[in-house]
Amino acid sequence: MRIALGIEYNGRAYCGWQSQPSGCAVQDQVESALAKFAGAPDTRIGINCAGRTDTGVHAREQVAHFDTDLIRDDAAWVRGTNAYLPADIRVLWACEVPDSFHARFAAQGRAYRYLLLNDPVAPALLAGMVGWFHAPLDVAKMAEAAGLLLGEHDFSAFRAAECQAKSPVKTLREAAVLRRSGVIEFAFSADAFLHHMVRNIVGGLVYVGAGRHSVDEFAAILAGRDRSRAAPTFAPDWLYLWQIEYDARYTLPSRPGRHPFFA
Amino acid sequence: MRIALGIEYNGRAYCGWQSQPSGCAVQDQVESALAKFAGAPDTRIGINCAGRTDTGVHAREQVAHFDTDLIRDDAAWVRGTNAYLPADIRVLWACEVPDSFHARFAAQGRAYRYLLLNDPVAPALLAGMVGWFHAPLDVAKMAEAAGLLLGEHDFSAFRAAECQAKSPVKTLREAAVLRRSGVIEFAFSADAFLHHMVRNIVGGLVYVGAGRHSVDEFAAILAGRDRSRAAPTFAPDWLYLWQIEYDARYTLPSRPGRHPFFA
Repeated sequence: MRIALGIEYNGRAYCGWQSQPSGCAVQDQVESALAKFAGAPDTRIGINCAGRTDTGVHAREQVAHFDTDLIRDDAAWVRGTNAYLPADIRVLWACEVPDSFHARFAAQGRAYRYLLLNDPVAPALLAGMVGWFHAPLDVAKMAEAAGLLLGEHDFSAFRAAECQAKSPVKTLREAAVLRRSGVIEFAFSADAFLHHMVRNIVGGLVYVGAGRHSVDEFAAILAGRDRSRAAPTFAPDWLYLWQIEYDARYTLPSRPGRHPFFA
Repeated sequence: MRIALGIEYNGRAYCGWQSQPSGCAVQDQVESALAKFAGAPDTRIGINCAGRTDTGVHAREQVAHFDTDLIRDDAAWVRGTNAYLPADIRVLWACEVPDSFHARFAAQGRAYRYLLLNDPVAPALLAGMVGWFHAPLDVAKMAEAAGLLLGEHDFSAFRAAECQAKSPVKTLREAAVLRRSGVIEFAFSADAFLHHMVRNIVGGLVYVGAGRHSVDEFAAILAGRDRSRAAPTFAPDWLYLWQIEYDARYTLPSRPGRHPFFA
């Protein structure tokens, strides 16, 4: 049978989601914990995820699936796997899904958020959890520029050189910038994203907020499809894989944010 | 002249505020950074704080002061000291104060908060920043019990054996329990607290929320002044020194919370 998992993790200590020979990835931890719970610690239980996050990127809710012959109820998969996971990775829910479900290929949308403290003093309590920009940023201008990204565009200007996507054309369903106290929150949703696209867009919007590019220049950079004209890539450490969307027929558990900051 | 500092820190990596021979304390880091900025790295610049936090306790805003002959403007003390501090400690503000100011003895009130995730699954993103209680807690009952603590009481039932305060009688001005998404926030303010008093009260309130003690039993424990009858001390890791209050004549910088979660 096929089991889907919702997984929360703090990415600071890991080399991203995808399994590595050194075992430094979130996937390595989850597969190892599943195998221990299944009583077969030397057998690899291969899992597939919806969005492979880079080194240092966090997940409010990653979704993954695996196949198993082991019969356990959903709550047991959660408790049992968590018993073998480090404290910065937790399985939020587990549920049996039909074989037609695939965490990656059945995903209809992915949402990311980027959190940036805009304050003269860097974060200490949340060092590594929110980014930092010391000079005042014009959030209204950033939100205006973000609005230009909505809909279908060729996002070559925000595409990493290593990107392996077949086409640079993607459709953004959400591109918002808002301030909550001193933290600026960037929210993006799309069917899929190009490699480093969110971090490159954030870099471009921060240039707008800081007055280094006008909204018109930002529009011209998007239209110009030339990565070399755009602002630099922002750091990964403050990027959150926020949510994965699936067809309602899969009736996956819908968990509200557990924490007011990640609600 | 005398300089006051506002300081934010994540206490996870430190053995509390107070200086230790091993140098593991937050005070050691701040004094060392001040001395480096002052260009006298081998001279100790002694600082006094408002509330000595235990191992693992965080500070949204600690206040401290020190005396110096060095003339620097307030912003330079902030930037210069932060340049030598680790990322989990930051000076938020600095300002010259009259010699009558003393971070500890001039403090008129101290506010603490305790953050507890009440969810079947432990926190991963905020592991070490919020506590965890897996079974549902009755927040209305906890708030009712907390209300009994308001005003002047003999808090012997919530006093650590090692407490060196002259009297167990303290006056609580704020004792509130509220839920924000899945996180239960405990807020306490008083002129001063006994040793471990906040953590012992949180332990008592969680017993009420979990149904192990009724509100009446909680009231009897407070009135009985017997530590051995009360619930165990809660862990320090999710306690925040929130704010220190001083007479308005000192006109210390009043900084709103920088972060929506610590607003």
